[in-house]
Amino acid sequence: MSRFFSGKFSSLVPYTPGEQPSDQQYIKLNTNESPFPPSAAAASAAAAEAERLQLYPDPECRELRGALAELLGLETDQLLMTNGSDEILYYAFMAFCDEDRPAVFPDITYGFYPVYAAVNRIPYQEIPLRENWELCPDDYVGVRGTLFLANPNAPTGIALDRDQVEWLLRKRPDDLLIVDEAYVDFGAESCLPLIRKYDRLLVCQTYSKSRSMAGARLGFGAGNADLIRDLNTIKYSINPYTVNRMTAAAGAASVRNEDQNRRNCQIIIRNREWTAEALCRLGFEMTESKANFLFVRHPELSGEALYTELKKRGILIRHFSLDRIRDYNRITIGTREQMEKLVLETERILKDRRKEKPAAGAGN
Amino acid sequence: MSRFFSGKFSSLVPYTPGEQPSDQQYIKLNTNESPFPPSAAAASAAAAEAERLQLYPDPECRELRGALAELLGLETDQLLMTNGSDEILYYAFMAFCDEDRPAVFPDITYGFYPVYAAVNRIPYQEIPLRENWELCPDDYVGVRGTLFLANPNAPTGIALDRDQVEWLLRKRPDDLLIVDEAYVDFGAESCLPLIRKYDRLLVCQTYSKSRSMAGARLGFGAGNADLIRDLNTIKYSINPYTVNRMTAAAGAASVRNEDQNRRNCQIIIRNREWTAEALCRLGFEMTESKANFLFVRHPELSGEALYTELKKRGILIRHFSLDRIRDYNRITIGTREQMEKLVLETERILKDRRKEKPAAGAGN
Repeated sequence: MSRFFSGKFSSLVPYTPGEQPSDQQYIKLNTNESPFPPSAAAASAAAAEAERLQLYPDPECRELRGALAELLGLETDQLLMTNGSDEILYYAFMAFCDEDRPAVFPDITYGFYPVYAAVNRIPYQEIPLRENWELCPDDYVGVRGTLFLANPNAPTGIALDRDQVEWLLRKRPDDLLIVDEAYVDFGAESCLPLIRKYDRLLVCQTYSKSRSMAGARLGFGAGNADLIRDLNTIKYSINPYTVNRMTAAAGAASVRNEDQNRRNCQIIIRNREWTAEALCRLGFEMTESKANFLFVRHPELSGEALYTELKKRGILIRHFSLDRIRDYNRITIGTREQMEKLVLETERILKDRRKEKPAAGAGN
Repeated sequence: MSRFFSGKFSSLVPYTPGEQPSDQQYIKLNTNESPFPPSAAAASAAAAEAERLQLYPDPECRELRGALAELLGLETDQLLMTNGSDEILYYAFMAFCDEDRPAVFPDITYGFYPVYAAVNRIPYQEIPLRENWELCPDDYVGVRGTLFLANPNAPTGIALDRDQVEWLLRKRPDDLLIVDEAYVDFGAESCLPLIRKYDRLLVCQTYSKSRSMAGARLGFGAGNADLIRDLNTIKYSINPYTVNRMTAAAGAASVRNEDQNRRNCQIIIRNREWTAEALCRLGFEMTESKANFLFVRHPELSGEALYTELKKRGILIRHFSLDRIRDYNRITIGTREQMEKLVLETERILKDRRKEKPAAGAGN
C-alpha cells in the first residue's frame, strides 16, 4: 500500500476472479464461459468496426439498445448497456444503496456483492441460505434495504420461479429489488416481463454466458425509465464510453442471431443433465442447477483435493475458500467431450484415493 | 429521478460528452479523435480475437502490458491498463483523495475532474489559470492535496515542460501528482521518465488520440509499483475485466506499430500549424497548443455562433458553456482536407456576418 492510499479503503478486500493461467492449455471449467464461439455474424460485425477504431463509440449504444429493446419487448429508455453485468451491478450499489438503505443479499451468492458494498462503504446484511442451499423468499420479507438476488443463484445454481420473485416484490412494496440474471438462460424464468408492472425492479443480464461474449464485455440493466435515468447519471459521472465499438456491433449482431444463442443453451442444458447423472453415479451430491454449472461435493474427497487433482490433469474447476462452501466445487458445463473428460478423470482420482486409503473393513 | 436514488447524488451533475449525432455525416472536429484509422495490424489482431469472444479477457492484460512496458522502459508492475484514461482517472480520484486529501486542479481543465470529485464526494479546490490561460506552477506550491494536471491542458492545449513538472514535484514533497497526458504526443514532453525518481507521480495516457483507438477504449496509468497496487485494489473491487480481448490485442499490435502512430502525430502537428496560421489570418486569437486541437476565439463572432454556423455547414466543433471560456471553441485537428474545409467555411461565415453588420464608418 502506498502512503497515498485513502484510509477509507485500508481494509478493502477485492474480488478474486477465477484463475486465467497461461502456463498451459487447460480445459477451462472454472469461469462459466460458453464453450461455443459467438455467431460468425457477431465476429464479423466486430471485425468491421476494428477498421474504424479512431472514432469514439456511441455512448448511448443506440443501435444495440434498439435491437435489444425490440427483442425483449421493452422501450429503449428501459435499458442501459454496460461493460459486463458487473458494471451495472456496481452502478446499482452506488445509486440505490446508502446508510439509510443498506444492501441485502444471501450469505452464499455472487462473491462480488459484499465487495461492491465495501468499496462504496454501504452497510449490508447477509441472509443465510437454508440448510439445503435453498433461498426462501420468506426470509427477505420485512428486511429493509435494496435486495440483490442472483437468480439462478451462484454458485448453487438454484433458481426461484418468476411467481416467487413477484410474491417477494408484493411483500416488499417500499424497497428496490435487483435480480441478477447472469445464468437465467439455462433453464430458469426471467423476470423481464415484470418490469412494466413494478417500478421497483431492476433486472441485470450479461452477454458473458448464454451469449458467448465474455471476452467482449457486455451486459445490461432493464427497468423502469426512472431507474435507468438514475443509473445513467452514475454512468456519465464515471466513464460514459465503457462499451467499445466492436463489442456494441457484435452485441447487435448477437441480438439478430438469438436463435443460435438459444440452441447453444439447449446443448449446455443437455450436457449439464448428462454430467449431473454421471457425477451422481460416482457418488457426488449436488444442488438442482438451472445454470451453466454444477455445484457438487463428494463425501470422500474435499473440494480442494478435487480441484487440485483435476488441475494436475489439465482441467480447471472453481473452488471457493469461503467456509460454508469449502467442501464444494463449481464446475462449468462445457462441450460433451469436455464433460466426458472431466468425468473420466474424476473417476480415476476417486479410484486412486480408494487405493491409497482402503475403506474400513475392506478385506484386501 | 426515481424514489430509490440515493440522496447523496441528488445534486450530482454528470459530464457531458461531445455530441455524436447520427442525423447526418459531419466532419467531426469536436471530440479530439484521430482522423487516421489504427494500423492494419491492430485491426486484424482485434478481428482475430473476435472469433474467441466466448473466453474472458486476461484481467491483467499481460501481453499488452509486457509490450507497453518494454516500449516505455518501465517494469510491468508500474503499469495498469484501463478502459480509456477516464477509468484510471476515476480510480485515482477514488484511491488517492478523501476528506483529508482534497483534489486540486485548475479551474479550466478536463471537465471530468470536478465530476469525479463530486461522484466520490471528495472536496476539491480549483486554482484559476492565469489571464492568458497559462498554468503557473507557483500557484500550486503550498496547496495541500492530490493534484491533477492535464498536460497539455484541455481545452487550452498549453503544456508545461517536464522540468516545470519536476520543479513542482520537488516543491510538493508530501503530495501526489497525477499528470494526465491524453494529448502529450502532439508536441509536449512526457513525464514518464520521472516515474522511477518520484514515488508520488502517476502518469495517465490514452489510446484514444495519438494511437487512433478511441473506439476501442484503452488507457493506462504508470507509476511506482505501490501506487499501481492501490489502483488494482480499486479495480478488482469494481470490475476486473473492463479491457476486452479485442482491445487488448489491438493495443498490443499498436505498441508494435508505434512508428505509424508517431508519423500520424507528425502529420497532425503540421496540420495544426497550418490551421493556426490560416485562422490567425482570419483574425482568430488562440493559445499555443501542443495538443491535437486549437483553442480559438474571434473578436467578431461568439463561440456559440461559430459552433452553430459550422454545424449547419456539416462541421462539428466543440463549444463549452462554462462561463470563463464561452467565447472560445475547441477545434480538433483532422486531415489537411478537413482543415481546409473548416477554414473555407469559417471564412464564409465571417464574410456573411460582415455583410449583415457593416463595420462602423464603412463607406458602402
